[in-house]
Amino acid sequence: MTTARWLRPTRPGQSPRLEYGADYNPEQWPREVWDEDIRAMREAGVTVVSLAIFSWARLEPTEGRYDWSWLDEIIELLHAGGIAVDLATATASPPPWLTTKHPEILPVDREGRTIWPGGRQQWRPTSPIFRRYALGLVRAMAERYGHHPAVTAWHVSNELGCHNVYDFSDDAAAAFRTWLEKRYGTLDALNEAWGTSFWSQHYSDWAQILPPRLAATHPNPTQQLDFKRFSSDALREYLRAERDILHEITPDVPVTTNFMVMGETKAMDYAAWAEDVDFVSNDHYRLPGEQTLDELSFSANLTGNIAGGNPWFLMEHSTSAVNWQPVNLAKLPGELSRDALTHVAHGADAVCYFQWRQSRAGAEKYHSGMLPHAGTDSAVFRSVAELGETLKRLAPLQGTGRTPARVAILFDWDSWWASEQDSHPTDRLRYKQEALDWYSALLKLGVRADVVPAAADLSGYGLVVAPILHVVPQQLRERLDAYVSGGGHLVATYFSGIVDQDDHVYLGGYPGALRDLLGIRIEEFAPLLDGETAPLSNGTVGTLWTDKIQVTGDAEVLATYKDGEPAITRRAVGTGSAAYVSTRLGPDGIAPVLGDLLEQAGIGSELPAGLRGKVELAVRGEYAFVVNRTAEPVELTGLEGEAVHGSAELLEPRGVTVLRRA
Amino acid sequence: MTTARWLRPTRPGQSPRLEYGADYNPEQWPREVWDEDIRAMREAGVTVVSLAIFSWARLEPTEGRYDWSWLDEIIELLHAGGIAVDLATATASPPPWLTTKHPEILPVDREGRTIWPGGRQQWRPTSPIFRRYALGLVRAMAERYGHHPAVTAWHVSNELGCHNVYDFSDDAAAAFRTWLEKRYGTLDALNEAWGTSFWSQHYSDWAQILPPRLAATHPNPTQQLDFKRFSSDALREYLRAERDILHEITPDVPVTTNFMVMGETKAMDYAAWAEDVDFVSNDHYRLPGEQTLDELSFSANLTGNIAGGNPWFLMEHSTSAVNWQPVNLAKLPGELSRDALTHVAHGADAVCYFQWRQSRAGAEKYHSGMLPHAGTDSAVFRSVAELGETLKRLAPLQGTGRTPARVAILFDWDSWWASEQDSHPTDRLRYKQEALDWYSALLKLGVRADVVPAAADLSGYGLVVAPILHVVPQQLRERLDAYVSGGGHLVATYFSGIVDQDDHVYLGGYPGALRDLLGIRIEEFAPLLDGETAPLSNGTVGTLWTDKIQVTGDAEVLATYKDGEPAITRRAVGTGSAAYVSTRLGPDGIAPVLGDLLEQAGIGSELPAGLRGKVELAVRGEYAFVVNRTAEPVELTGLEGEAVHGSAELLEPRGVTVLRRA
Amino acid sequence: MTTARWLRPTRPGQSPRLEYGADYNPEQWPREVWDEDIRAMREAGVTVVSLAIFSWARLEPTEGRYDWSWLDEIIELLHAGGIAVDLATATASPPPWLTTKHPEILPVDREGRTIWPGGRQQWRPTSPIFRRYALGLVRAMAERYGHHPAVTAWHVSNELGCHNVYDFSDDAAAAFRTWLEKRYGTLDALNEAWGTSFWSQHYSDWAQILPPRLAATHPNPTQQLDFKRFSSDALREYLRAERDILHEITPDVPVTTNFMVMGETKAMDYAAWAEDVDFVSNDHYRLPGEQTLDELSFSANLTGNIAGGNPWFLMEHSTSAVNWQPVNLAKLPGELSRDALTHVAHGADAVCYFQWRQSRAGAEKYHSGMLPHAGTDSAVFRSVAELGETLKRLAPLQGTGRTPARVAILFDWDSWWASEQDSHPTDRLRYKQEALDWYSALLKLGVRADVVPAAADLSGYGLVVAPILHVVPQQLRERLDAYVSGGGHLVATYFSGIVDQDDHVYLGGYPGALRDLLGIRIEEFAPLLDGETAPLSNGTVGTLWTDKIQVTGDAEVLATYKDGEPAITRRAVGTGSAAYVSTRLGPDGIAPVLGDLLEQAGIGSELPAGLRGKVELAVRGEYAFVVNRTAEPVELTGLEGEAVHGSAELLEPRGVTVLRRA
Repeated sequence: MTTARWLRPTRPGQSPRLEYGADYNPEQWPREVWDEDIRAMREAGVTVVSLAIFSWARLEPTEGRYDWSWLDEIIELLHAGGIAVDLATATASPPPWLTTKHPEILPVDREGRTIWPGGRQQWRPTSPIFRRYALGLVRAMAERYGHHPAVTAWHVSNELGCHNVYDFSDDAAAAFRTWLEKRYGTLDALNEAWGTSFWSQHYSDWAQILPPRLAATHPNPTQQLDFKRFSSDALREYLRAERDILHEITPDVPVTTNFMVMGETKAMDYAAWAEDVDFVSNDHYRLPGEQTLDELSFSANLTGNIAGGNPWFLMEHSTSAVNWQPVNLAKLPGELSRDALTHVAHGADAVCYFQWRQSRAGAEKYHSGMLPHAGTDSAVFRSVAELGETLKRLAPLQGTGRTPARVAILFDWDSWWASEQDSHPTDRLRYKQEALDWYSALLKLGVRADVVPAAADLSGYGLVVAPILHVVPQQLRERLDAYVSGGGHLVATYFSGIVDQDDHVYLGGYPGALRDLLGIRIEEFAPLLDGETAPLSNGTVGTLWTDKIQVTGDAEVLATYKDGEPAITRRAVGTGSAAYVSTRLGPDGIAPVLGDLLEQAGIGSELPAGLRGKVELAVRGEYAFVVNRTAEPVELTGLEGEAVHGSAELLEPRGVTVLRRA
Repeated sequence: MTTARWLRPTRPGQSPRLEYGADYNPEQWPREVWDEDIRAMREAGVTVVSLAIFSWARLEPTEGRYDWSWLDEIIELLHAGGIAVDLATATASPPPWLTTKHPEILPVDREGRTIWPGGRQQWRPTSPIFRRYALGLVRAMAERYGHHPAVTAWHVSNELGCHNVYDFSDDAAAAFRTWLEKRYGTLDALNEAWGTSFWSQHYSDWAQILPPRLAATHPNPTQQLDFKRFSSDALREYLRAERDILHEITPDVPVTTNFMVMGETKAMDYAAWAEDVDFVSNDHYRLPGEQTLDELSFSANLTGNIAGGNPWFLMEHSTSAVNWQPVNLAKLPGELSRDALTHVAHGADAVCYFQWRQSRAGAEKYHSGMLPHAGTDSAVFRSVAELGETLKRLAPLQGTGRTPARVAILFDWDSWWASEQDSHPTDRLRYKQEALDWYSALLKLGVRADVVPAAADLSGYGLVVAPILHVVPQQLRERLDAYVSGGGHLVATYFSGIVDQDDHVYLGGYPGALRDLLGIRIEEFAPLLDGETAPLSNGTVGTLWTDKIQVTGDAEVLATYKDGEPAITRRAVGTGSAAYVSTRLGPDGIAPVLGDLLEQAGIGSELPAGLRGKVELAVRGEYAFVVNRTAEPVELTGLEGEAVHGSAELLEPRGVTVLRRA
Repeated sequence: MTTARWLRPTRPGQSPRLEYGADYNPEQWPREVWDEDIRAMREAGVTVVSLAIFSWARLEPTEGRYDWSWLDEIIELLHAGGIAVDLATATASPPPWLTTKHPEILPVDREGRTIWPGGRQQWRPTSPIFRRYALGLVRAMAERYGHHPAVTAWHVSNELGCHNVYDFSDDAAAAFRTWLEKRYGTLDALNEAWGTSFWSQHYSDWAQILPPRLAATHPNPTQQLDFKRFSSDALREYLRAERDILHEITPDVPVTTNFMVMGETKAMDYAAWAEDVDFVSNDHYRLPGEQTLDELSFSANLTGNIAGGNPWFLMEHSTSAVNWQPVNLAKLPGELSRDALTHVAHGADAVCYFQWRQSRAGAEKYHSGMLPHAGTDSAVFRSVAELGETLKRLAPLQGTGRTPARVAILFDWDSWWASEQDSHPTDRLRYKQEALDWYSALLKLGVRADVVPAAADLSGYGLVVAPILHVVPQQLRERLDAYVSGGGHLVATYFSGIVDQDDHVYLGGYPGALRDLLGIRIEEFAPLLDGETAPLSNGTVGTLWTDKIQVTGDAEVLATYKDGEPAITRRAVGTGSAAYVSTRLGPDGIAPVLGDLLEQAGIGSELPAGLRGKVELAVRGEYAFVVNRTAEPVELTGLEGEAVHGSAELLEPRGVTVLRRA
């Protein structure tokens, strides 16, 4: 984060508040609907809307000719209604005239296929032509609206990289080369890092280098990994290009863009991106499944940590069903509020939706909104208005930082990218799933955890979990060594510590970078076939992976496989320790293992025993959020504090109680 | 249908007859086989063959040089043998010289891939170059053979759209724009209909519009829907272009083309296409599965209704196995005859096969024929000859129209296309399957039904079923209102009445267009995940979909979900009614619901109770067809009439009895 | 095979030995590692390494500029260390500078997609430009190193066709036409063979012919089959081009290339390729599954037969896990030795691995090597050294030919290619699987078999199995007739004898080419749906396929289907016989059927009854290899001979005993 900033007030003397609102697309509706919108927004307690996100084609209907009239009018209407504007730069999707005139801005996929207009985001992140036109619009927007008092923040583009992060065009090839020259300096260094002696890939000229386009077989893994790094960076660079114009013209308006810390969205290294915005924003949508609530909490938590403890903006989530999953479930009573407050619990000071009024046409017309097809006389709108009241009651919370946990889970994009590459011991490995499983286990145990980037300061944590920490450069290795030497407790899983930043294997036995720290040595990986299981002596059952572990020093064996060989080890290091789990245990299998490790680290649950697993606890200073993880009512006993939302005695099914502990 | 016509007689004083025959490809065989063919055709009772369907490359071996000799000869031989010729225009597949000279006639798929020669139908429906060459051949064919007495009908191309209906080439883009200009008149109207304010898709010039090529995410849904309409229309336009030449040169020879009303073939709106032919022809192939016989009857019935009650021509089906399914089953004893007579039962006055003599080479050599690889000394050929005898006995039937049923099932291509588009509440929904399930339920109940296009006159029907009638333009809405007001009984299912012709949602609560008529209001859809079920109070079990229904007026609740909320409703409207089924029940679940609705509509089975479900009844005037739906013998009691085929007492396994009820 | 040759000795007076070694890629490692490599190779007993396989980019770093220094040095080091060099021509993967300068050498796939660099083998087999550059390198290599005493053999390219066998580029189209002109002479002959009267595919000019690129539907089957033949031949032609240069410059150095007789690798007709090398080499990797050991033996056996009884070279297999399977299993104790010795048992006189030292970077870094990441202090390296000792003990075996079995299984690439093409009675049929099932059944019965190309001399065999011998040209038909007439016993399965060399069906009833010989006639195929089974009267159960068989002569019925119709037949012909199995029985179902047929053919097991199924027996002259097929120890009783490896009494789990029977 360049600086920690929050929204610019749009009214003199504005009190702290939790923001509430949505994307608002008035251009999709006749003028007469707008007044009704403002009225209903006020009824719902809306404080802010994001405007103009997909408005380029309406704002610049033909090249160089702007039509500001409708946007002028709606901004005035909103401002008059006391609603602030998070103004998009409107560059998310280029208008048809631009792609017709310059089809060379259209992305090209790995197979050489052009990505045509018809959807959205049909632009190459590295296209100089696109950039010229888009930055022209940004400048025009900033000049026209940047000084309007209604504008509380800038919203750069939208969900950067949602569809166009991997572009294999010639523009991308050229930019990739530039990025590589900057990273490696010399071709020799690149040839060494990429291991190009293998398969006759030695480059004698920068111009020979290409993105990893469709190849005859597995492309060079370091080329693949660097292309992922480059692709994330290329969008960051674009983000900075928009931001710099906005900062130049309106230095007092903070700039953000909506991240997508959620599910399997993995192409953008948001831990790095956070440096480029004035405050972090995030979009989050739940997928159905057993761990849906855990993933919600995990993502909110990670977003809060990426934001460095500063307030962050929940830019999008949904009031009910979405439209892009195979089957799109409506939310059950209570879920709308619970989901929103879970984000607040993890530091969100703004709760927004896609979108205000559900579209009647277009690709997202079956995506729920604050104001559904059914109108204001609907359960969804009533819940929306109720949440608006809740957020008003929670206004004092604004700016209160998240209270750190004692346990950290390391989350590392390099390891995510590298560990799931091809030609590995197994292609079934899922990085995010393993990290989530540890988080789920902590929720079961009622122990709060922080999901933090690998670069985070670990000194305050009593226990650090490193799930599949595959890429361990020398510096990270030293930090982990120091953490444990300093009395910290570390637990790493299978396939951690295997390679350096160039995806080169540490030799001499796995897990090379952590071998000494863990006091073990592995000669060969032993992944499991689908359906194969590995029962452990502690009653848990491994899947996916096992290792043949040799204990090389003073490590103790916490659990063994059926053949008596070690499955889980732990090496005491002074008052600290370094443990290793060599198989996938899943949340239920992790919980007892983790319970023991927590005990040894002196970390207990902050919840009464009867509540552990049933509720999630999150803490922001004197405020404790208690989230019902079940569909049953939960009696709250043993918790202190005064309820500022919900009941202090009984937590409703899917409900949230917020306690103030003075 | 421009006019209702039937085959031109090829002999003076020719008696009415049911036609019998096949595609005939003599050019695949040495000359000496031809005489044997004619002899065996006569033995089998063949009256007509389709000639020259894939003969372009043999008739015009190099550009502009025609070789008619072999076709001249075989037409003479056939005519001398008393066999009429349904003469193809031979344009189905362009010859290699044409695609070599003009590769720009090759189709391009959604991903930009060229569709190369090697198979068949490798031409763009909208290619002006293809059209020039193809129409040249049509004219040459018409001039040479149009006045030959053997020619009983023209067969335009073949299975138009089987492989090339969706073409995304630049030719298609240009034609799509022309079609859109005609539909919308102005760009403003198109922008409004397509909802282009969404995702910055506003067009400022017609030239910016493209087919929905591979995009970054869901393309605009109305663009998709219009492209489906356009693609169907583009082929219709091509059909009319061939037809007009044929009409011009040979006004006395009727023109047809073979539709593919079957299975999941959905890209051609045959209800509209029927206007462009002098009589309807159809190709039908069964797929294995529990509903294989139901689908056969459904398709034959729908074809008969598309033909408007006029005789239609079964242009292709198979004597036994086909070659294009994953596993291709041979027909069991009795199935050859049963399948053919099921089509006759629903109005077919011609029974033809692909193909006469099974090929020994090429892609369809494992597709069965009338004369199999094994030769005339074979079970298949004996069954073929036996069916020839049967059809002779049934000759008096020719021209006898289908006797309408009391129940209609609406079948609507717009709803099929729109309801299965992407970004919907569920991607599991299958339009055709739901319609078929209602048809299967009626077969179980022994109640005849007509599957009719949505534009059909409903006034004669006592009950109308509207399965997933998703697209309800204002006019259709008024027709349904009027039908019920006039005492008709309507039952609609989930996801009906949701959008107008532009795929815009009717606001205020679902199902907007039918909300008042049904007396219900739905705020949110509640689709089910795979494996989820919704038990109903009437003992049936829903899958796929549910709704949260509010009864808004005087509708009664016929069945509820477990939580007591309405699942099936019915609103009495004068002597009529409008019912709603909010979930997928499948044939077994529909049957009891439908039984009650039929009873209230005063519609009963025409079959004795003991036969219902075991046999299918179809009626053509005084002829009743009784089809055994089982593999067991069925005793026929309680049926009146004299058997003109089969036994009036005992229906053989897979057998058909035809009764004449004077 | 042009001539049967073996490695050139690199030392005067060199004794016969079994070669031992690996691919060696010193250029991936710093210079200081090389000395350690030589030392460890000597410790392991390495006698030969393959050098320079992917070294083009290092040997010719820019066009025309060669850098031989590192290769000069390592060859000297190896030679000094007593290690021979199997020198690659280094053409397997073109360097980046070449594909940058000439992107027109990149292959194009069926869908028109360019195959880009990044992996390996990104070259069109028919590219004249690639050939010019590659042959230039071959000549330079031969001139520089061909007379070095360390060079024991030439290794042409590497795994020719592993990724690039099917190329659909314009180069391929041109070469395909040339190949077709040579095969057919006239367009008339081609049109007849391809059945182009079907679907209007008649060619009037050679230039119209294309590879079977992406088409609208099933491309012409003979075009597909010929393209497979051509593609195999195009690579053979390239192989010969390299070989001819090598023979010209170094007539005394034998030339080989590594085949891939393994698993489902089917695109190269290695029975034909064997003619083009001086000795046969093979690469083999096991896949997990029940038949993994059977497949290992099957492939080794087939390789031995392709080699015509001459010694062959196991160029690659793995010491433990590979990297390209979905899940890559490490080998269990004993498997390293067992796998290697199984190849030796079937005639391999050289045992080599990919690769010497496991890579630390690149796409194959998780592929095991002789010297693993863990270093020499590892179980793998100890097993490697132990195997080196074993091979030394087995040195006298060198040059001892395989002792033919009494049973042969015909293995025919034409039938493999043709029987699995599209638009067939079922797409579930798997040629190789059926052949393997018969081999597995023979292993269960303890009966040795030879897997031989269809062109092999059958006269020595008592029983010949023809699994899915689909393509039976007239000559093969006559050979089979003669074999049976001469007292041989033949058993053929379903879908055999159906088509001639042009994929034209033999008419009059299936299996046309074998109808008279088998004494049966089939009118229709009756494939089974997934999950369907066909119980037989002999207690076995068929899947996949059945036939409706008429016994036309004196054949007896050995087993029937449930309906009493024949399932397995056998016709005695003098002292010989011809049997037919009409369904897929799997190894367990085949075993009893085969047991009876073997008995009638007078062929018994060479193993004591107690060992049958538990061990595999392979014989090379006076040496008997007994391979434990189980993970349990097996007591060896009733076997004669002195153990030269392993114990004559007890066969260890996964162990091998080699007996010398003087």
